[in-house]
Amino acid sequence: MRAAIIGAGVIGRGWACRFLLHGWDVVVYDQDPATPGQLNKTLQQATQALHALYAPSLPGSGTLSYAESIATAVIGADWVQESLPESIELKQAVLRDIAPYLGQDVPLASSTSGYKPTALAAGLECAPQLLVCHPFNPVYLLPAVEVVGSESTRADVLTDAMTVLRHLGMFPVEVRREIDAHVADRLLEALWREALWLIKDGVATTEEIDDIMRHGFGLRWAQMGLFETYRIGGGEAGMHHFLEQFGPALAWPWSKLTDVPVMDAALIDKIARQSDAQSGHLSISELEQQRDENLVALMRALRSTNQGAGRLINDYLDPRL
Amino acid sequence: MRAAIIGAGVIGRGWACRFLLHGWDVVVYDQDPATPGQLNKTLQQATQALHALYAPSLPGSGTLSYAESIATAVIGADWVQESLPESIELKQAVLRDIAPYLGQDVPLASSTSGYKPTALAAGLECAPQLLVCHPFNPVYLLPAVEVVGSESTRADVLTDAMTVLRHLGMFPVEVRREIDAHVADRLLEALWREALWLIKDGVATTEEIDDIMRHGFGLRWAQMGLFETYRIGGGEAGMHHFLEQFGPALAWPWSKLTDVPVMDAALIDKIARQSDAQSGHLSISELEQQRDENLVALMRALRSTNQGAGRLINDYLDPRL
Repeated sequence: MRAAIIGAGVIGRGWACRFLLHGWDVVVYDQDPATPGQLNKTLQQATQALHALYAPSLPGSGTLSYAESIATAVIGADWVQESLPESIELKQAVLRDIAPYLGQDVPLASSTSGYKPTALAAGLECAPQLLVCHPFNPVYLLPAVEVVGSESTRADVLTDAMTVLRHLGMFPVEVRREIDAHVADRLLEALWREALWLIKDGVATTEEIDDIMRHGFGLRWAQMGLFETYRIGGGEAGMHHFLEQFGPALAWPWSKLTDVPVMDAALIDKIARQSDAQSGHLSISELEQQRDENLVALMRALRSTNQGAGRLINDYLDPRL
Repeated sequence: MRAAIIGAGVIGRGWACRFLLHGWDVVVYDQDPATPGQLNKTLQQATQALHALYAPSLPGSGTLSYAESIATAVIGADWVQESLPESIELKQAVLRDIAPYLGQDVPLASSTSGYKPTALAAGLECAPQLLVCHPFNPVYLLPAVEVVGSESTRADVLTDAMTVLRHLGMFPVEVRREIDAHVADRLLEALWREALWLIKDGVATTEEIDDIMRHGFGLRWAQMGLFETYRIGGGEAGMHHFLEQFGPALAWPWSKLTDVPVMDAALIDKIARQSDAQSGHLSISELEQQRDENLVALMRALRSTNQGAGRLINDYLDPRL
């Protein structure tokens, strides 16, 4: 099997590594001359992490090559993944270039975090094969991927795509209704805005917010998410009772929740300064290394608690399903 | 050392277990006749979890007793923890009852998730010893605790309280500016509102949202939080550059982010029904058991990656500091 990776920024490189380490051949198209060097580095990190997570069950790696044109990348590919910057004009232009070379049943997946697939597909002849597959950084390690079809996406293409993603060790969640930013980035944006207010108003620093998250609700959300956690919070009285109690608080006058903060130079400076104080003693590579070691350990830990029907612990921990 | 636990709902029971299992004697005051039975059950869960996390370094348990009055609970206590329902009138009435029996240097900590300590302390003679210590459920297991002093809180009481919390294996974060709901519940409320919209608008179910969270950004936030994660996302170009790029998206017309959803009967029914479909095959006890096993495994995993200066992995993993 062969994947064409169109655009090799952080997300595209992550996809390339995930495909390679699950045995696919990968052809990368990106005109930035720095791409091979950056991808080699990401591949080293990913190889170390995935071997720690899956060994000895990981298959042999596929082969990596680079294409000089979109045509040579896409011809013969069994999967095409577009991971260009978030500009709909740019994405549509490249999707239009891809179309003539796309095999007839091949999924054409966009990593877009913001655009609806129907907006992306407008006027494109490849629309029936186009869908959104929005992953999470680091793509080679985090299992979740949001899969969104457009009004034109063929049902069999969507189904096949879900199967391929599961074979790549991912946990695809189909989002059945199109909205800007899908599901995850809606949630992330809401929390991010509120965090910006907390910084701007001097309530907490970047480090204090991170500490409260990772020693508090971050640990909860790594294993149960929001609703199952609150279900427990409600106790034996049940979710219905819990929600009835919780409802009135939504109308409390926490006005900052509903304003949009202005990201002006002063706020940017403040956050960047606090972040430097928090993490500036480590390079990005060192932070990535720490993150990956932590994620591997967390995912191995969740595998170890594989309870009951394994509902909480996931298929993604076995790449051979 | 002896702690007085005033109010033994889910949060009060969690505090009681944390104190007991770290060697403190605990006196509980709660007029609900179901309290001893419920607390015994929580204590079994907590004992199992903390032994799995800390053994063999956990000290012997303290003794547990029940008081018939606030006076007998508070007299001789080295820490008083109030965990009553979120009603400021109720809390103030009980804090007023506690005051005459409070030792002169003893912290009087409120578990309130919503009220500012200065609002709680208004007109109370115990104000100099009153502070907010807002924990996370399950309190016996999750390390984070938000510590907020009022305008009247004595500096030495605040400092001593931070030390005690660290000795209880917690990770206290001092919130230096008072706002309604402190830090964590501001962030939680923002994400919760957005999640309600996603359910109400039929974009995703409770289970799909939970899956996207726990296989995606939940794993990220269990170990690095928000800002360090984004720092990595920004790459070598740095946080300043990342923020400049990200800024414009804040003004995008994602209007649902800034509306307040109405928690009407239809929405309550929808969420409760989806939650039942997701988790109704398990009792709350079974869910708690799964949660605790997962949390213990995650925390052990983070201890195992104790990198560099140990900044990412925390003091809370060694209760003997």
